[in-house]
Amino acid sequence: MIVATALVFLMHLGFAGVEAGFTQSKNTVNILFKNTLTPVIGILTFALMGFNLMYPGFETPGWFGFSGFWIESPAGGSSVDYAGGGYTYWTDFLFQAMFAATAATIVSGAVAERIKLSSYLIFTILFVGVVYPIIGSWKWGGGALDALGFYDFAGSTLVHSVGGWGALAGILVLGPRLGKYMNGKVNDFPGSSVPLATMGVFLLWFGWFGFNGGSVLSADPGLVSYVLVTTSLGACAGALGSFIMAHFVFKRMDLGMVLNGVLAGLVAVTAGADVFSTADAVIAGFIGGFLVVLSAVFLDKMKLDDAVGAVSVHLTVGIWGTLAVGIFGSNAEGAMPFLPQLIGVGVCGAAAFSCASLIFLALKYTIGVRVSEEHEKEGLDSHEHGIRGYTIILE
Amino acid sequence: MIVATALVFLMHLGFAGVEAGFTQSKNTVNILFKNTLTPVIGILTFALMGFNLMYPGFETPGWFGFSGFWIESPAGGSSVDYAGGGYTYWTDFLFQAMFAATAATIVSGAVAERIKLSSYLIFTILFVGVVYPIIGSWKWGGGALDALGFYDFAGSTLVHSVGGWGALAGILVLGPRLGKYMNGKVNDFPGSSVPLATMGVFLLWFGWFGFNGGSVLSADPGLVSYVLVTTSLGACAGALGSFIMAHFVFKRMDLGMVLNGVLAGLVAVTAGADVFSTADAVIAGFIGGFLVVLSAVFLDKMKLDDAVGAVSVHLTVGIWGTLAVGIFGSNAEGAMPFLPQLIGVGVCGAAAFSCASLIFLALKYTIGVRVSEEHEKEGLDSHEHGIRGYTIILE
Amino acid sequence: MIVATALVFLMHLGFAGVEAGFTQSKNTVNILFKNTLTPVIGILTFALMGFNLMYPGFETPGWFGFSGFWIESPAGGSSVDYAGGGYTYWTDFLFQAMFAATAATIVSGAVAERIKLSSYLIFTILFVGVVYPIIGSWKWGGGALDALGFYDFAGSTLVHSVGGWGALAGILVLGPRLGKYMNGKVNDFPGSSVPLATMGVFLLWFGWFGFNGGSVLSADPGLVSYVLVTTSLGACAGALGSFIMAHFVFKRMDLGMVLNGVLAGLVAVTAGADVFSTADAVIAGFIGGFLVVLSAVFLDKMKLDDAVGAVSVHLTVGIWGTLAVGIFGSNAEGAMPFLPQLIGVGVCGAAAFSCASLIFLALKYTIGVRVSEEHEKEGLDSHEHGIRGYTIILE
Repeated sequence: MIVATALVFLMHLGFAGVEAGFTQSKNTVNILFKNTLTPVIGILTFALMGFNLMYPGFETPGWFGFSGFWIESPAGGSSVDYAGGGYTYWTDFLFQAMFAATAATIVSGAVAERIKLSSYLIFTILFVGVVYPIIGSWKWGGGALDALGFYDFAGSTLVHSVGGWGALAGILVLGPRLGKYMNGKVNDFPGSSVPLATMGVFLLWFGWFGFNGGSVLSADPGLVSYVLVTTSLGACAGALGSFIMAHFVFKRMDLGMVLNGVLAGLVAVTAGADVFSTADAVIAGFIGGFLVVLSAVFLDKMKLDDAVGAVSVHLTVGIWGTLAVGIFGSNAEGAMPFLPQLIGVGVCGAAAFSCASLIFLALKYTIGVRVSEEHEKEGLDSHEHGIRGYTIILE
Repeated sequence: MIVATALVFLMHLGFAGVEAGFTQSKNTVNILFKNTLTPVIGILTFALMGFNLMYPGFETPGWFGFSGFWIESPAGGSSVDYAGGGYTYWTDFLFQAMFAATAATIVSGAVAERIKLSSYLIFTILFVGVVYPIIGSWKWGGGALDALGFYDFAGSTLVHSVGGWGALAGILVLGPRLGKYMNGKVNDFPGSSVPLATMGVFLLWFGWFGFNGGSVLSADPGLVSYVLVTTSLGACAGALGSFIMAHFVFKRMDLGMVLNGVLAGLVAVTAGADVFSTADAVIAGFIGGFLVVLSAVFLDKMKLDDAVGAVSVHLTVGIWGTLAVGIFGSNAEGAMPFLPQLIGVGVCGAAAFSCASLIFLALKYTIGVRVSEEHEKEGLDSHEHGIRGYTIILE
Repeated sequence: MIVATALVFLMHLGFAGVEAGFTQSKNTVNILFKNTLTPVIGILTFALMGFNLMYPGFETPGWFGFSGFWIESPAGGSSVDYAGGGYTYWTDFLFQAMFAATAATIVSGAVAERIKLSSYLIFTILFVGVVYPIIGSWKWGGGALDALGFYDFAGSTLVHSVGGWGALAGILVLGPRLGKYMNGKVNDFPGSSVPLATMGVFLLWFGWFGFNGGSVLSADPGLVSYVLVTTSLGACAGALGSFIMAHFVFKRMDLGMVLNGVLAGLVAVTAGADVFSTADAVIAGFIGGFLVVLSAVFLDKMKLDDAVGAVSVHLTVGIWGTLAVGIFGSNAEGAMPFLPQLIGVGVCGAAAFSCASLIFLALKYTIGVRVSEEHEKEGLDSHEHGIRGYTIILE
């Protein structure tokens, strides 16, 4: 679990790589600034209140509870038997805090290249500190969705689609980047560094070993190792699915889509990594890879501008992965029911999307959410940060 | 073991960094595409058949066996006592699958900048899915070489030289890059990003802790920690050896050679990391560092164009490391014999080289192995992938 | 502990990223060369003598001891009960060797862009092989400072400020880079790649989990997990502190300062990660973030040119973190005394600074420490290494 926590931390570097690599060089510093502060805010707000909102100690399954400000070790918190799992209170806190910050990072990628930094930071504080943990408490805190039989092993819904709904709200409120949709055409803005983005995806896959492996919440080597196999098979099948689909749709060897396909495959098996057979994991991942390409095309058709494809990866495939548990999953009691999965997707989606929309709209009508047209054209780096992302002087 | 598996996965990012960093910016996306799909193909083919070819359950030591398609947990597969080691069936599969893909990645680097992507992918499926596991079964599956007393702790021969022979076959069939050898001169093509290559080498070293540490195949902390010490001493001595040798040969502080020296040192101690004394590890690594420089010079003299030095690192030093076990190695029964090492090197080499050559030649006379002259000159990225690796706009 | 060792190794990649990212593209290869050879030299000299200088087996607390050249496993060295901790002799060696090389890497960043490579390498051999371990033996080897009650959990003083004093000595002897201070103005030289620097900081944070987590020197999950929480809270608070302070001082969203703030927060809690409360960790980290900005401004006022801010991060905040133990820290016996902390800072500082100054001065008056003015202007890469760090051809 401790090692898993460290790996999940590294996912924040992975996201930083993907987002900075896939966006324009004039905004690189801005993106890195957001992605550096996201885990900072995530960990601090989770210590301040998020953790105690997420694990409020419901006496009967409920929708809201809060066990007070700041983290404090309970009796027996340093023992590895804390909460009946093979981990301590402190490991649990850090692992969950790293997870929480992930939800905000997903938003960060989608809204990149035009959001005001101050607005993003305020959104992150509220989304990670309040919205995410309350939704999470419904399942992982033993709340109402848990009582209903909703299953989400490592967060296809609770982490990925919650983040994805936040991202969707953000791009709706912000609108597309200048020049993205012109004269009925979709213009791609070339990313600054494909190696950086590729490195990011590999680090995310690596971190996912911690994300899914650690979600076993014990050190049972049989289950942990099985989960890593389904996780990896999902990632591979996702890459294959999007490779094939992108070949049909775009008629090229599309590295961006293959990389998003890896992530899609990972998201697709995150809800059911422990209840899928190996073959199910391949199928779920493969369909995830298909969906991520189709979703990206569909969003562009709707003129919804997602700078790095975060909505397609985390929302579209997050929903798919959660529903797949109700299709393929089986546990000791037999096949898992579909209805609780559908309810869970709907309830969490409604909550996440409406809260995120409210926050973004409130920001829009107060301090504003979007940088000026001039700043956007010239790049956020020179205006807000005073330095450039790359200064490579080839004599 | 589970952690070791994750570290070995990260080696694929390391290879991606080394290969993309040391090759030209016009081919960066192509290389990353290959290196992303290599573990994808490796894991899927290993699940489909490779694992069951490698561990066929020989009843008497043999040369070929196959226990059927697709992975399936045997009785007791989730227990940590699977196969008498301290790991589960699933850990074993994933660890070996990560290894397997490494062999193809070695080929990828050598043949970069002129191989057709489709041909490379077909080669990888056959090499990782069939050739590598059959050769591996001779030793690690309890086959004929194992019965002979051949020793290869973590794969100087079974992984590195097998990959190296595949790379050699590839560059022989492909021929050198356009303009590499002109008017009796060797022209170096500058790599796109030395930081990326350096990062790759550090990640490979880091991953090697998993590669060699995990090959103990148990969690015996005494042996694992000892192996990490010999591994690190080998890496350091390799760097020192190539630093000195490159200083003599090229009269400069050659970072490329020092980085390849680190890898050479690692390969040199991979076969005997558990049977070398600390001083042996230093000597073996140091000689490995010498050899990698001499081999690179020799290959260029033979007009064998290896884009990243993969043949020198993995084949030349892989052979050296395997033979070094017969020179320095000693176990509980005393000094280890030299002859089985020599036979192992020869048998595996003949098999790997002839199979790889056959595959490459079959591809050459069917769909072709080399891109057109125009594509090679203009770069593979714009033709096959439609995007560029770097888009850094300095106002 | 074995995993922790691997993570600490990765810190060397983190330092390489920070230093190459924050310095000019004409010196990139030179910096990577230094940072590749630093762990190489560190591990080899530590094997040769450093480890035996650091753990000399003092019979009574002393100032100097040496238990002979080269590492050799003592009786029981392969057992996990070695030295009463939960680790083996070999793990202990490798972990400490990785630490030792860190001290030299700190110097490397400060003196970058104008130091002669050969002089740096000689300095590193002496500093890592002799100076660092002797100072370290005073506390961790059971020497005189340990007997005095000086407390330094994971090396705010013994690693960070020792490295920082070496860095200060280096920049004093070398003088500032050409053009850094002109006409009463401080000129910033833009770093080659902010993504690379950011990646470096994330990897350092990740490695710090090993650095501080491993310093528990046992696998007690309660304490290890607690230490990772205080470590992460310190990092977050440091980032926040320097974000706010830089906003006041420089009136911009200064990513460089936020990144150094993360490192400052980590250094600030390194001496007391196990004896701070969570709130103390936040306060100590936050003040560390303040100090790193103020220190950078002060050094520039003194015309002390530190290419990456290493003195501010490691020396200034290293001292703060050590003293903070005497302010906030408490253990089973109650509040920890302030005086031994002050003495430890003073004694180690005097020793490290005078030794480093002596070495640098001796080098200055023999082979020279600084490259020629021409080389410095044109960049060290083309002169000493013959290649460029980046070769990105945008058609």
